[in-house]
Amino acid sequence: MFKANDSEESPFSQVRPSSKYSAASVQPCEPDVDDNSHVNGEYANVNWDELRFDLTPTDYMYITKCSKEDNFSPGTLTPLGNMEMSPSSGILNYSQGVLEGMKAYRTEDGRILLFRPELNALRMKMGAQRLCMPSPTVDQFLDAVKQTVNANKRWVPPPGKGSMYIRPLLIGSGSMLNLGTANEHTFLTYVSPVGNFHKGMVNLVVAENVYRATPGGTGGIKAICNYAAIYRTISEAKAKGFSDVLFLDVVTGKRIEEASTSNIFIVKGNIISTPATQGTILPGITRKSIIEIARVLGYQVEERDILVEELFDAEEVFCTGTAVVVNFVNSITYQSRRVEYKTGVETVSQKLYAALTGIQTGRIEDKMGWTVQLD
Amino acid sequence: MFKANDSEESPFSQVRPSSKYSAASVQPCEPDVDDNSHVNGEYANVNWDELRFDLTPTDYMYITKCSKEDNFSPGTLTPLGNMEMSPSSGILNYSQGVLEGMKAYRTEDGRILLFRPELNALRMKMGAQRLCMPSPTVDQFLDAVKQTVNANKRWVPPPGKGSMYIRPLLIGSGSMLNLGTANEHTFLTYVSPVGNFHKGMVNLVVAENVYRATPGGTGGIKAICNYAAIYRTISEAKAKGFSDVLFLDVVTGKRIEEASTSNIFIVKGNIISTPATQGTILPGITRKSIIEIARVLGYQVEERDILVEELFDAEEVFCTGTAVVVNFVNSITYQSRRVEYKTGVETVSQKLYAALTGIQTGRIEDKMGWTVQLD
Repeated sequence: MFKANDSEESPFSQVRPSSKYSAASVQPCEPDVDDNSHVNGEYANVNWDELRFDLTPTDYMYITKCSKEDNFSPGTLTPLGNMEMSPSSGILNYSQGVLEGMKAYRTEDGRILLFRPELNALRMKMGAQRLCMPSPTVDQFLDAVKQTVNANKRWVPPPGKGSMYIRPLLIGSGSMLNLGTANEHTFLTYVSPVGNFHKGMVNLVVAENVYRATPGGTGGIKAICNYAAIYRTISEAKAKGFSDVLFLDVVTGKRIEEASTSNIFIVKGNIISTPATQGTILPGITRKSIIEIARVLGYQVEERDILVEELFDAEEVFCTGTAVVVNFVNSITYQSRRVEYKTGVETVSQKLYAALTGIQTGRIEDKMGWTVQLD
Repeated sequence: MFKANDSEESPFSQVRPSSKYSAASVQPCEPDVDDNSHVNGEYANVNWDELRFDLTPTDYMYITKCSKEDNFSPGTLTPLGNMEMSPSSGILNYSQGVLEGMKAYRTEDGRILLFRPELNALRMKMGAQRLCMPSPTVDQFLDAVKQTVNANKRWVPPPGKGSMYIRPLLIGSGSMLNLGTANEHTFLTYVSPVGNFHKGMVNLVVAENVYRATPGGTGGIKAICNYAAIYRTISEAKAKGFSDVLFLDVVTGKRIEEASTSNIFIVKGNIISTPATQGTILPGITRKSIIEIARVLGYQVEERDILVEELFDAEEVFCTGTAVVVNFVNSITYQSRRVEYKTGVETVSQKLYAALTGIQTGRIEDKMGWTVQLD
């Protein structure tokens, strides 16, 4: 039985009627700092309808440091701007860093919601451990995120216009010459309002002879070192008209892993499958949430090895991530074979997208207890 | 015939008699800048006998920037110190960076020599291309290195006491949110006097279930993203009493690749073998030079796949790199099997070391044309 088709029975049905956005319904907001000279209204001066997935400078960032053997002390908000960085720091020379990506949404009744932020905090801790770095506690992480979003509240887009992307970043800022843990680390958080990640069709190409991760490596954490190496592959794919790249595992070259910044799911009948997280795939928080939502909606979800050939047999494919949220995939090309997938409003991914973003934006009741409302 | 044993016939025989170092034989040096207030002698105030492979702050660094589509303009020397860095720069968030490592030596007659610096320049260009970054020209690179060493001349150790380690660094300094090439890049060079890298015995352990590089990845360039991921493995090995880790290839898990920061060679009779550079191994400049020296000395050098089992059959093993120079390996442990190798003055590695460092330090005539003397 395909329960998900029955929206009447969905636990994710909308509980608040959608209303035209009214700026007046949002409380005026002021940063938690003294200098309010730049605050000239409850919203920053942004053309919200033209918002893209790009960096827009905001007002404040959060920053704190700790020495090698110490813990992070409470951080401070400072005006967003350049930091002092040693030329011989671990981050600049040896890529000792872990990032996070998360979003804040403004609801129609003017609240600001974070989505499962404690999972980002835990993932940063896991990443820091893998890279031999100290990490902020979960509470420190959450405090940093909340303070940064609050201080930049006027940059959180109006409902329906986008979200505030939040970038916590943990870097080895101490000077060093030998490989090893830096003697000072910096934890910071900055934010930017963003629009949709993908515009239009999503056509993926399977990367051949180039890989994203190794067994025992850093593919399973959000390490900064996972990214620069895949630029060229993404760039070459885009030059050929593709939207993004889908990577295979390096050991067999036969199993799909993930796209450059998103996890991948395939749908066949009532079964939704996604590669299992075994250290080479980022354990995405959107991935995890979609799996949980799909199960509640009555789908059978399998986390397992998925052979690249299965792409030719799937009815629907979609990708998930903080940036992309849930995005259906129009086509995948592998070794000159191209397969197209079902897209549009009647797809599984659309149902999952609606349920997820309904919770994230406060349009539907959060029975999962996933959202955290800013004070 | 084993020509290398016949030092009389060696083209690398010493041409300058070794003399006790005399500071007076070195010309006074001054940085190419106006502020000489810190210069209180021809040598910096360092206990040269206690020099280790660590960072010692010096006086000046070289720095220049370029925008995405532009070329690097001539850089400037500035006092060594913190740089301004955007929190959302490509280097801090996505590890877009390429480093180099090279050394300057002070000769007994007071000259300062660089070793094949144009090869570092070319390797940085290759790395920049792989990571979709603009790079300085070879001439700009050489100019940066020469200016930086000259400005910090008093930090070049006396002959026999160490060398000046030189770190050119190319980083994506522009702000960004999306993955891709930064819109600004910074090229800088800083230096530090250093002593020996390895102290005492060199006991390697073969890493299992963790790998350094992937086919099509960045193992063949000096990308900053190659390093943070291997800290834990090195740290765990050191906790068990090993000096360093030897990595295997990820696809078969059977072929040796390299140690954490050095290439590896095995010796059996007159044959010296080292893994071929096929994109997963750094094409070391010391590696290349040792191959060339070994061939001149009459050894047969093979660049090829080397199975891990061959380690148990080798008579001698040594590693090469800018930091380690040429260092014999005392033992290698693989899956609880430990094999010990010949070390000491009668080894092949010692002959190669003597020939290489003889050229690098100006103790023997540079018939290869490898050294570049600073003005």
